[in-house]
Amino acid sequence: MTEKYVYSFNEGNKDMRDTLGGKGANLAEMTNLGIRVPFGFTVTTQACARFYQEDQKLWDTLNEEISEHIVTLEKENNKKFGSVEDPLLVSVRSGAPISMPGMMDTILNLGLNDEAVVGLANKTNNERFAYDSYRRFIQMFADVAMGVDKNKFEDVLTAKKEEKNVANDTDLTAEDLKDVVDKYKVVYKENLGQEFPQEPRKQLDAAITAVFASWNNERAILYRKLNDIDDNMGTAVNVQTMVFGNMGDTSGTGVAFSRNPATGENKLFGEYLINAQGEDVVAGVRTPQEIAKLQEVLPDVYKEFSDTADKLEKHYTDLQDMEFTIQEGQLFLLQTRNGKRTAKAAIKVATDLVHEGLIDKEEAILRVGAKELDAILHPTFTKEALDNNQAIAQGLAASPGAAVGKIAFTADEAKERTENGETVILVREETSPEDLAGMVSAVGILTARGGMTSHAAVVARGMGKSCISGANIVVSEKDRVLKANGKTYTDQDVISIDGSTGKVYIGRLEQENPKLEGEFGEFMGWVDEIRDMKVRTNADTPKDAAQALEFGAEGIGLCRTEHMFFAEDRIFQVRKMIIADDFETRKKALDAILPMQEEDFYQIYSLMKERPVTVRLLDPPLHEFLPKEDKEIQKLADDLGKDVEAIKERISELAEVNPMLGFRGLRLGVIYPEISRMQGRAIIQAALRCKADGIDLVPEIMIPLSSEVKELSYVKAEIVDEIEKVFEEKGQRIDYLLGTMIEIPRAAITADEIGKVTDFFSFGTNDLTQMTFGFSRDDAGKFLPTYLDKELLEKDPFQVLDQKGVGFLVETAVERGKKANPKLHLGVCGEHGGEPTTVKYLYNVGLDYVSCSPFRVPIAKLAAAQAKIEKDRK
Amino acid sequence: MTEKYVYSFNEGNKDMRDTLGGKGANLAEMTNLGIRVPFGFTVTTQACARFYQEDQKLWDTLNEEISEHIVTLEKENNKKFGSVEDPLLVSVRSGAPISMPGMMDTILNLGLNDEAVVGLANKTNNERFAYDSYRRFIQMFADVAMGVDKNKFEDVLTAKKEEKNVANDTDLTAEDLKDVVDKYKVVYKENLGQEFPQEPRKQLDAAITAVFASWNNERAILYRKLNDIDDNMGTAVNVQTMVFGNMGDTSGTGVAFSRNPATGENKLFGEYLINAQGEDVVAGVRTPQEIAKLQEVLPDVYKEFSDTADKLEKHYTDLQDMEFTIQEGQLFLLQTRNGKRTAKAAIKVATDLVHEGLIDKEEAILRVGAKELDAILHPTFTKEALDNNQAIAQGLAASPGAAVGKIAFTADEAKERTENGETVILVREETSPEDLAGMVSAVGILTARGGMTSHAAVVARGMGKSCISGANIVVSEKDRVLKANGKTYTDQDVISIDGSTGKVYIGRLEQENPKLEGEFGEFMGWVDEIRDMKVRTNADTPKDAAQALEFGAEGIGLCRTEHMFFAEDRIFQVRKMIIADDFETRKKALDAILPMQEEDFYQIYSLMKERPVTVRLLDPPLHEFLPKEDKEIQKLADDLGKDVEAIKERISELAEVNPMLGFRGLRLGVIYPEISRMQGRAIIQAALRCKADGIDLVPEIMIPLSSEVKELSYVKAEIVDEIEKVFEEKGQRIDYLLGTMIEIPRAAITADEIGKVTDFFSFGTNDLTQMTFGFSRDDAGKFLPTYLDKELLEKDPFQVLDQKGVGFLVETAVERGKKANPKLHLGVCGEHGGEPTTVKYLYNVGLDYVSCSPFRVPIAKLAAAQAKIEKDRK
Repeated sequence: MTEKYVYSFNEGNKDMRDTLGGKGANLAEMTNLGIRVPFGFTVTTQACARFYQEDQKLWDTLNEEISEHIVTLEKENNKKFGSVEDPLLVSVRSGAPISMPGMMDTILNLGLNDEAVVGLANKTNNERFAYDSYRRFIQMFADVAMGVDKNKFEDVLTAKKEEKNVANDTDLTAEDLKDVVDKYKVVYKENLGQEFPQEPRKQLDAAITAVFASWNNERAILYRKLNDIDDNMGTAVNVQTMVFGNMGDTSGTGVAFSRNPATGENKLFGEYLINAQGEDVVAGVRTPQEIAKLQEVLPDVYKEFSDTADKLEKHYTDLQDMEFTIQEGQLFLLQTRNGKRTAKAAIKVATDLVHEGLIDKEEAILRVGAKELDAILHPTFTKEALDNNQAIAQGLAASPGAAVGKIAFTADEAKERTENGETVILVREETSPEDLAGMVSAVGILTARGGMTSHAAVVARGMGKSCISGANIVVSEKDRVLKANGKTYTDQDVISIDGSTGKVYIGRLEQENPKLEGEFGEFMGWVDEIRDMKVRTNADTPKDAAQALEFGAEGIGLCRTEHMFFAEDRIFQVRKMIIADDFETRKKALDAILPMQEEDFYQIYSLMKERPVTVRLLDPPLHEFLPKEDKEIQKLADDLGKDVEAIKERISELAEVNPMLGFRGLRLGVIYPEISRMQGRAIIQAALRCKADGIDLVPEIMIPLSSEVKELSYVKAEIVDEIEKVFEEKGQRIDYLLGTMIEIPRAAITADEIGKVTDFFSFGTNDLTQMTFGFSRDDAGKFLPTYLDKELLEKDPFQVLDQKGVGFLVETAVERGKKANPKLHLGVCGEHGGEPTTVKYLYNVGLDYVSCSPFRVPIAKLAAAQAKIEKDRK
Repeated sequence: MTEKYVYSFNEGNKDMRDTLGGKGANLAEMTNLGIRVPFGFTVTTQACARFYQEDQKLWDTLNEEISEHIVTLEKENNKKFGSVEDPLLVSVRSGAPISMPGMMDTILNLGLNDEAVVGLANKTNNERFAYDSYRRFIQMFADVAMGVDKNKFEDVLTAKKEEKNVANDTDLTAEDLKDVVDKYKVVYKENLGQEFPQEPRKQLDAAITAVFASWNNERAILYRKLNDIDDNMGTAVNVQTMVFGNMGDTSGTGVAFSRNPATGENKLFGEYLINAQGEDVVAGVRTPQEIAKLQEVLPDVYKEFSDTADKLEKHYTDLQDMEFTIQEGQLFLLQTRNGKRTAKAAIKVATDLVHEGLIDKEEAILRVGAKELDAILHPTFTKEALDNNQAIAQGLAASPGAAVGKIAFTADEAKERTENGETVILVREETSPEDLAGMVSAVGILTARGGMTSHAAVVARGMGKSCISGANIVVSEKDRVLKANGKTYTDQDVISIDGSTGKVYIGRLEQENPKLEGEFGEFMGWVDEIRDMKVRTNADTPKDAAQALEFGAEGIGLCRTEHMFFAEDRIFQVRKMIIADDFETRKKALDAILPMQEEDFYQIYSLMKERPVTVRLLDPPLHEFLPKEDKEIQKLADDLGKDVEAIKERISELAEVNPMLGFRGLRLGVIYPEISRMQGRAIIQAALRCKADGIDLVPEIMIPLSSEVKELSYVKAEIVDEIEKVFEEKGQRIDYLLGTMIEIPRAAITADEIGKVTDFFSFGTNDLTQMTFGFSRDDAGKFLPTYLDKELLEKDPFQVLDQKGVGFLVETAVERGKKANPKLHLGVCGEHGGEPTTVKYLYNVGLDYVSCSPFRVPIAKLAAAQAKIEKDRK
């Protein structure tokens, strides 16, 4: 049996995408549903593949199959190709299994020639319409199928209008258009060296060949390469009887959604034009009407369309995006597909569909894009505000959300002015950990330097605070001015920043808060029911923790203690501890810090109750805590009774060439075990206080930056010893877990050893990415944007986990760690924990939880639920 | 059949180390060779293991076996345990299969008691000797077997001497010693609560028990842990008939080597003492005589010893380290083992043994320690000079060799003064790439900061130049003084530095050059015959290349182009290139650099002829090339017609937080492809010039720092395009190879992709170690020494490749790369390429070559040959 390369619409169905392409499959499905679709046939993707084997020629048996289907089409329509009485006209469209840019555009009115145009004129009794259709066809065919610049045809038309001294195409008469057709044929011959083909079958073959050829045009190849689409997949070609929306007042054309794609409201949403073809809508000469109006104009048609939309929605169980044409009062559907929608609409549609019984909760969960969810979790500027204001600068959309405030140039100033009741945006060249207090105070952050992963960006995302980094502005802290777009602004100017677009505005733009409407809560409830991977949050303060709970966090996966160290009331003791020359002085400073740390943990534990809280021991290089300004240095010197030079010497001693790879993490604990001991003690003492309050929690102590089991065991032994002392002093014990971050390649590789001495691993994918790629997050701004531009990297690996490289290490660690210790608990903390594709990947790798910024908790939860469903369905 | 736990010396042989221990196996072997060895037996290591299963008690059947062997011993010697006529006395010594510190010392004269001492006096007709032996035995037994502090016994002896008013033990009479023996027994009872055991068999059981128990003392356990020795191995116990060297003028004792262990000269080397026991030699009361003298004193004994040494050497086919005792004119061998020797001696002995037909070349190669070879490849200070001078400071032995010169405080100064004929040592706080010219000029480098892998240390080792880093000195460039040991030195002071010991001396110490004598050349010839892994060198200049050829390098595995960029005549163009705002200016600067680069390569190629030369494209961050001093910045500004601020801004723009992970390596080529193009062109043009000279070389172009195949392919495409242009311009083509460094974890992981587009991989194990561990080489000095001290790391991973972590990535890359491209050529460049255990490891992993500093080429070659032999023997 020879292969079948051509299918009539009544021979296919929606599941035949691979063969018929997306468009063809849906046209077949609608036909079978009894919906009125202009009849036609589809030449399959397999034919496309064979086309390339046949030296890009259509072969005999294919031609025969096409001929048979043309005969069927002629019979169905009772029309004939090229007929002077009632010619069959068709449209030709490409349609690959996956929607792809670069593929050939539509050709309409194929079948017209010097005779058929007479037939069309006769049949429609509209000579002008017939010749206008003919001249459009010639132009479209020449342009789309044969590659002739369409401006050459437009020039003819323009000349004609000038000659006739009219403004619009519609003002040209049938005679004028006949002349245009003649001239078009001349242009055609001049450009292609051959006559415009009069034989409809030749026109069709050329059109099909052009569609197939467009599969391998440059743009399509590039797109497939970038999206990892198989080059052999091929495209189908849809040949469909023409219908005309421009045949008078009972004709028309339109596009509509079965529900509102912006809000999800269950009401037809779209536009139509009476007496028009699709291209007229696009041309924008006339303003389309809202679809609801059609009810008044053509009530029967409206009802039929409304019923059809309903039927299609029920059939596809999803919001439909439809194209239709009305020809002399008769409705034809030309296309239907699942419609794109906003996150807000996605949630409403999905929950409504569940309530309507069309889909189940699992399906609903799969219908909402986790990544898109981000858009509804932050305040935004109103559409009106955005429409009415011009941005003065553009930067990276580093942390979403809208913020409005006066400019503050330093962290201290931000803090002070906020305390005095002002609302400020911190505007810096770039931020450093010393700016933290100012960042906490400010409502938003704007920097002139740094990328998506700069200090400002990372910290701001962690806080769920709007941030734009690397904007094209000049900031002078000294002169206290911000320069942008040729103008200068001071601390009295109000700016508005949109962290979702990277745009900076001058003045106060109107904001609206995220509306987490009823459906959202209901939807997240389903997500929580189905999901089995836990979602924790990264939170360093009781305030963060409270926010995270609101967003549904199930624990804290990363509580960084260094941020606590920066607090104003303790940074001084921290500095004294670092500057200390000897154990005694250091111990004294640590003793002063201990009660504060204990109180930190107590507050957080009290809020989180029995939920797990993972506290990471001190991580950053010590020099980050030391003062940079002379005034601060002097203060420290005075207090310690040392001279300024000695302090400066210690500061310079601690300076590092590559702090990222330097003296930090558990290396601090190896050299100064008393720091780890103090922190271990604070954690346990706080937990014991909670126990007295009736909260039975199991503290999780996390040691950062392991690279070798022996160093980890060394620090662990110190902490365990200190904890045993606490138990003895207090006369009671509690359970606790002790684990490590896996953020250095060697830790992942030696997970078989490290797993034996730890209760849990938490993957620090930020640092792991830095070391696996050899990319410093702080410096990658010099080359990473170019890498993304040139497509040398598909995604920013600091945003989307690199599964090939970093993932290999994660998988190695999971496998080896689990083998060494089957009870090992596995999680991830860091930016990647809130990125949907990464969350899904990590779920499949076998992690027990992810931890992310509070604002990303719902996103991570949704991704985790989707991963579970997808896995179950496999 | 019950297990045999005790072997007479005539029942064992040298291959029974695991059962009899090293000492026992050799005593058995000598016995079987017919060499006169005091007869005895060995209790096996298996007995030790069972001892621990039996609650640390000797069990019945073992006791029976021992009894049987005592009977044999009594018969052989015709003596009896505890006899008042002729008592059997034995020594008891531990002896594990692997020589181990912490094990129990020797006990001599066991078997003496109140009766046997009379027998000994009778038999030897020397009452004083008998009681002196008895009191020594009591002390030794109490100390070694029972753990009583020996000072308690010494106090008794001292009191006796005071009482008798004599100075030496030898001045005490038999009566005095009888009294001492009585008092010793009192001390024994006071300390142990029991009488000194009179029953010889009880003495023996206690001694054997003590030896077994010492297997698990703290020091032994620690040693085993550190050296990965199986705790279950156990130690054997050797029980041997006593012989006495202190029985008059025809008795004596000595230690000798069959050849000179310092020079390898084939002549007995050692010392002896007449009328003495081993401990007298140790006590140093009398000065021992050179072994040659024995020929005059006891010619027959000397001849017998000489013949025995010869026999043992032939039997063991190696230099022997022997202990002997002469008892009344009769020679007894007490021990023989392969002797430790210097590298120089090792080579001479090994080559001599081959010439003597005792061993083959392969065996000779295995006999020389590759690591030790380093000692003979550098100039050294003479022994006299070292003996007569006191060091003024101590630092890290960063790069071996001796150097003498006046102090220079800056690189410029070093260069200038060297050009003016002075010899200088560059003394810096620490060095940076800007100091390179000064380092090249100076004969040695001394720094106050930095570790074994600091810039100074790494560059100096690369140059084979003496260097001490991190010395306890204070250097002030401003005041132009070096302070050490409380004194101040200026640029007119001469210092001598010993890079092999880290010691700094004031004044001019006498040096001697490495004497690569005849045997060395012959030996290396054999190494080259057998070896199949190639050894290349890291060389950046024709001078380096010439030196490397002298040391036998087979090519250049790493020719760094950045050092060329620092040359005085081009750094200015390099800076202009970097500062350039636009492509044109940059291109102009590159055009100026091109002919210089081409000439560099031409010179090196001309020297290296057809040998492979791998040129690495520009690697360091651009800011390393920029001036740091205002004067230099001004000069650059003037030349470019820019203001100083603009230059400074560009410098600060290029500054990085973590330069190690920053904008360098092929990332430069992605952003500025014109730099890679210039270098590719220079390489090919130079090779074409060589072709014209009749040298057919295949240039190897190495792209550094790949982390992703797409970035590599991008840069490769640029270079290939440029090279094609060169071929077209010159009208001829040559073959060339294009490869990459694997120095980023992700490159190793994605070697399956990278291997497909490259001809070779060269592992950059320095950077790979930095990223795998997350250790910055520049900053690790803050914690790495502590890690090594606390044994959290066994070795410095920058010196000895970490096989577990870094090795995993190397192996992954080799496996994946070879699978993707079976023709892939594999090498390593960097410090590890000259470290013997690493070389062997890499050979077994499947690398084709290693590349190391010129001075390490012989070491690497030897290690490679040994690896080959060891592999073949498996």
